[in-house]
Amino acid sequence: MKLFVVRVLHKGVITKMEKLLYTGKAKQMWQTDDPEVLRVVYMDQATALNGKEKDHFAGKGKAANAISTLVFQYLIQHGIETHFIKKLSDNEELVKKCTMVPLEFVTRNVIAGHFASRYGLKEGKVLATPVQETFFKSDQLDDPFINESATVALGIATHDELAQMWTVCQEVDTLLTHLFAKAGMQLVDFKLEFGHLSDGRIVLADEFSPDNCRLWDLKTNAHMDKDVYRRNLADLTTTYDKVLARLEEVIAEEQ
Amino acid sequence: MKLFVVRVLHKGVITKMEKLLYTGKAKQMWQTDDPEVLRVVYMDQATALNGKEKDHFAGKGKAANAISTLVFQYLIQHGIETHFIKKLSDNEELVKKCTMVPLEFVTRNVIAGHFASRYGLKEGKVLATPVQETFFKSDQLDDPFINESATVALGIATHDELAQMWTVCQEVDTLLTHLFAKAGMQLVDFKLEFGHLSDGRIVLADEFSPDNCRLWDLKTNAHMDKDVYRRNLADLTTTYDKVLARLEEVIAEEQ
Ligand SMILES: Nc1ncnc2c1ncn2[C@@H]1O[C@H](COP(=O)(O)OP(=O)(O)O)[C@@H](O)[C@H]1O
Ligand SMILES: Nc1ncnc2c1ncn2[C@@H]1O[C@H](COP(=O)(O)OP(=O)(O)O)[C@@H](O)[C@H]1O
Ligand SMILES: [Mg+2]
Ligand SMILES: [Mg+2]
Repeated sequence: MKLFVVRVLHKGVITKMEKLLYTGKAKQMWQTDDPEVLRVVYMDQATALNGKEKDHFAGKGKAANAISTLVFQYLIQHGIETHFIKKLSDNEELVKKCTMVPLEFVTRNVIAGHFASRYGLKEGKVLATPVQETFFKSDQLDDPFINESATVALGIATHDELAQMWTVCQEVDTLLTHLFAKAGMQLVDFKLEFGHLSDGRIVLADEFSPDNCRLWDLKTNAHMDKDVYRRNLADLTTTYDKVLARLEEVIAEEQ
Repeated sequence: MKLFVVRVLHKGVITKMEKLLYTGKAKQMWQTDDPEVLRVVYMDQATALNGKEKDHFAGKGKAANAISTLVFQYLIQHGIETHFIKKLSDNEELVKKCTMVPLEFVTRNVIAGHFASRYGLKEGKVLATPVQETFFKSDQLDDPFINESATVALGIATHDELAQMWTVCQEVDTLLTHLFAKAGMQLVDFKLEFGHLSDGRIVLADEFSPDNCRLWDLKTNAHMDKDVYRRNLADLTTTYDKVLARLEEVIAEEQ
């Protein structure tokens, strides 16, 4: 973990000294005065192939932050416990600091991506039941697939904790499939991360943006997620801005 | 599936016409007069890297057949339902014909092989609890890892069938860990396959030989399985003959 201290500029004024806890592939995590609160900075950057490709996209951080904020607020309104506190600025939000569970929880409604290639299946078929997969979060090991048995034997999570997180994944799937459908998009698959609060409770953490899910336009089947970058199909920020505009419209209607 | 008819020579006399149903990486499966019975021929051949490497080893088929026969007889004596009928000759046995479940069931007691490299772990550590993994049996796809959720969603097996097969894996693990320990070997990991009999019942099928498990000498930690071929450590047939001799001794004592 990189630990260095910098002066923080808020509207041109140096306000305090903050520690950068972590620079990831899409976000930075900063310590705040409150030991239980982190400041997340969404960067104007996208990576593919687990970080092996990296590019700059002006406005991407702002769009991802706005989408994630809308989605987390929607989930909280519908009873999901999360790390989200509030949006601070275009690129920043405050979240509750977690000890992360080093797993990526993937839920798949439609066959796509690695799932298609791994099992020799065609992209686009709706699965009989949603598929739930976990990957051990490790850039060095390329996020290997892991099952429940190994997760428990290696002490990464218990059976009960896994069951609890999978239940949240299912609830999120139901809620967001509905939300995105109203916004004219099919929620093909998505990745969630969870963490333990200081009292041990498990909450939904990280982000929800087109970086970590697949969204297909319900009418045209066009990709409206990071696949436009991975497959070189369209401009990333323009695409994310479209998703944001549609979500804002639908959520305004709901209120 | 390759289907061709050949004349079968028994002690130099052409007895009947038989159909070769399948030539795999280690065995041939032949039709018999009884539609519910297959003749298995163990070949003098070993493959590595899922068939990408292949070599001839005189006496290997005989040793694998003898070991698998002893193990299946031991499992049957201890209440496990299997496809095994009887050994016919050095290289042949008769088994009940199954509709195979296209999964490989791997049980791991000790960290080794792909499990070590996949999760960045050192070989040799005993796991807190045995790990159970399934792989979708497909040479073309390189036997990809598959979890319960995908297995069910893709219609490969039901939750109940998986639970039933995993229970047998656990029983086999307990029985064989004991048997091999008495024979001076640690059962590190092993792969099983299951099939449906014509009445639908699921039974243990395929084989149990050092082709499909890892055995380490309890005193010297020497490899006594196909890893001697994969890692070029010792002669394959000599190694398998050692395993056989030790098993025969222990089983003679048990009777
Ligand atoms: N509430 C939280 N508390 C602590 N860490 C978090 C929290 N939410 C997300 N994280 C972690 O912070 C990092 C976010 O940055 P990101 O760019 O997504 O990193 P990565 O490249 O590791 O995915 C991730 O490692 C994520 O697991
Ligand atoms: N009782 C059985 N009935 C039908 N098929 C079987 C039975 N037992 C094993 N098999 C299958 O027969 C083949 C055995 O040959 P093998 O050389 O092990 O093939 P592979 O290279 O596919 O593993 C395997 O495909 C295995 O699944
Ligand atoms: Mg991330
Ligand atoms: Mg085989």
